[in-house]
Amino acid sequence: MTEYKIALVGFGGVNRGLAQLVAERNARWQASLGFSLKIVGVSDIFLGSIVNRDGLDAAQLVALPAEKGAFAKLHGGTAEAFTETVIRQSGADIIAEATFTNPVDGEPATTFCRWALESGIHVVTTNKGPIALHGSELKALAQRNNVAFEYEGSVMSGTPVIRLARQALAGAEVQGFEGILNGTSNYVLTRMQEGLSFAAAVAQAQQLGYAEADPSADVDGYDVRLKVVILANELLNAKLQISDVACSGISNISAEDIATASRNGQCWKLIGAAQRQADGSVQASVAARLLPLSHPLAGISGATNAVSFTTELVGAVTVSGPGAGKIETAFALLSDIVAIHTSQQQ
Amino acid sequence: MTEYKIALVGFGGVNRGLAQLVAERNARWQASLGFSLKIVGVSDIFLGSIVNRDGLDAAQLVALPAEKGAFAKLHGGTAEAFTETVIRQSGADIIAEATFTNPVDGEPATTFCRWALESGIHVVTTNKGPIALHGSELKALAQRNNVAFEYEGSVMSGTPVIRLARQALAGAEVQGFEGILNGTSNYVLTRMQEGLSFAAAVAQAQQLGYAEADPSADVDGYDVRLKVVILANELLNAKLQISDVACSGISNISAEDIATASRNGQCWKLIGAAQRQADGSVQASVAARLLPLSHPLAGISGATNAVSFTTELVGAVTVSGPGAGKIETAFALLSDIVAIHTSQQQ
Repeated sequence: MTEYKIALVGFGGVNRGLAQLVAERNARWQASLGFSLKIVGVSDIFLGSIVNRDGLDAAQLVALPAEKGAFAKLHGGTAEAFTETVIRQSGADIIAEATFTNPVDGEPATTFCRWALESGIHVVTTNKGPIALHGSELKALAQRNNVAFEYEGSVMSGTPVIRLARQALAGAEVQGFEGILNGTSNYVLTRMQEGLSFAAAVAQAQQLGYAEADPSADVDGYDVRLKVVILANELLNAKLQISDVACSGISNISAEDIATASRNGQCWKLIGAAQRQADGSVQASVAARLLPLSHPLAGISGATNAVSFTTELVGAVTVSGPGAGKIETAFALLSDIVAIHTSQQQ
Repeated sequence: MTEYKIALVGFGGVNRGLAQLVAERNARWQASLGFSLKIVGVSDIFLGSIVNRDGLDAAQLVALPAEKGAFAKLHGGTAEAFTETVIRQSGADIIAEATFTNPVDGEPATTFCRWALESGIHVVTTNKGPIALHGSELKALAQRNNVAFEYEGSVMSGTPVIRLARQALAGAEVQGFEGILNGTSNYVLTRMQEGLSFAAAVAQAQQLGYAEADPSADVDGYDVRLKVVILANELLNAKLQISDVACSGISNISAEDIATASRNGQCWKLIGAAQRQADGSVQASVAARLLPLSHPLAGISGATNAVSFTTELVGAVTVSGPGAGKIETAFALLSDIVAIHTSQQQ
């Protein structure tokens, strides 16, 4: 019976989702996955922190109110976020890092990842910042310390895309990809196809909780750009920086553009793409593009995400599914732990 | 440097495609995949057989004319198919089985798989017959002999579907699936949406080489049924026999039905599906179904295949890509070998 001790860094929706999965499913995982999880520490900048090497009660963690310093309410907890202690001193085998994405310098998440990896602790994360900005450094650090650094959820939350391309398509020779990698902007475009203006569609997305009060990271392509950098570096060994990727969004698309496209049997989609060039370099971009309705991504509607890989041996292979959601993203962390377990077992 | 010795059983399009990949790519696989392949034997009921433990020239094999007894032209070859000798005596580590699908008893492919597995030789196959009819027996035989039995290509050729669900979605709790699993019938329905009659669309599919002279295995759902049995048994542990799956096709769908669906914002698709029921049993079927255009499979047009998995933790995850093709299906065999290599390495 394998049991992994995990510490949760950041306790917003995603790691709370993971704690919920532990509370509900840990017993059956021994049979279905071959391991169980024991939560030995949690840290959150807002809620505080707690460590218990004998294991915390996952259900109690899930039930914790989202109030400043709430961990102080628990036996042994504190209102302060002693994150380094939680990472280095909780006895965790695996750190689940799910703090906020910082697209400027990837902090503090990158430091959290470094602390874990240099301590010989596996890291699973859903955070785009550390991977897009410091991915190759962190991968090298993991390798030097003989631990895993997994981040399936950083691109399409629970929809497997990195592992699909890296494992199941190994040998197919991926040459590039095109993706719908932001659910909010795709939802806005879908609503505009149904007749709404850009502003009205954004307002609807905000009402549904898809879009932030400032929707620019979504509709101007910046969120997609981070994901393009992650995928291109991962699958095409592109060594791209964020600034290498030309980026525009959908805010200039008018209701009239949408209607014209529709009359011509086309549709507008915000596409993040990268493609290996004849000279071996990789060209990547984020831009609204007119697609024929026969394109594999044309039928991806609403908040769904999708990536279509172009491969030398099998042509286009497309995967679609949710690109967000608390439990969905928590599953991505679980799938990373499954991958760690598989590689340890064999 | 790992080198696997492989023997090819059946030398039609698929294994000829694998030989072509070996001829063109073996050198680069050492760097990209960590192994190379050496073809040590080939057997084909029509072409004859050949064994060379020092390795056969893959390019020479590919160039062999498709004439009865053609292997007799090669040094050491014979017009007779000594398949048991090729499997048991060639020194192969892996048998690539790609003979014809026999939906009645799975023979002679099942016997070929048994010979290999009981000799402690890994089997990779694209053949639906042995898996759909004798899958659990062959898996048990492989396990007893501590070798792999892999068949990714048996459902959607080179598009990864078994490995996606088994590995990348492990823990997501697959509850069922719906798939477009036959390219010919989907091509026919797509052409009918464009205005052709059923008969005219079938004739076009035949002209393009998609459909056989007798198209019934494709358009009456029998091909899809084999794939449903394979997927349901693999992913839902359903223990289904072929006769457990109700099966109908698309030959009763009229141009008028298609037009009516289109007017109602729907489309007809031939869907192979299986779903776990409340009592734990699995219900599976093959039938033409009316889908709303928002359904993940509604946009799958032409000869493309797709499977949409329903999961407990991430909802619907859909993968689409080619469902046939010589090189595409040969890649499936390669991907099985990659999986064997990965499990040996760790």
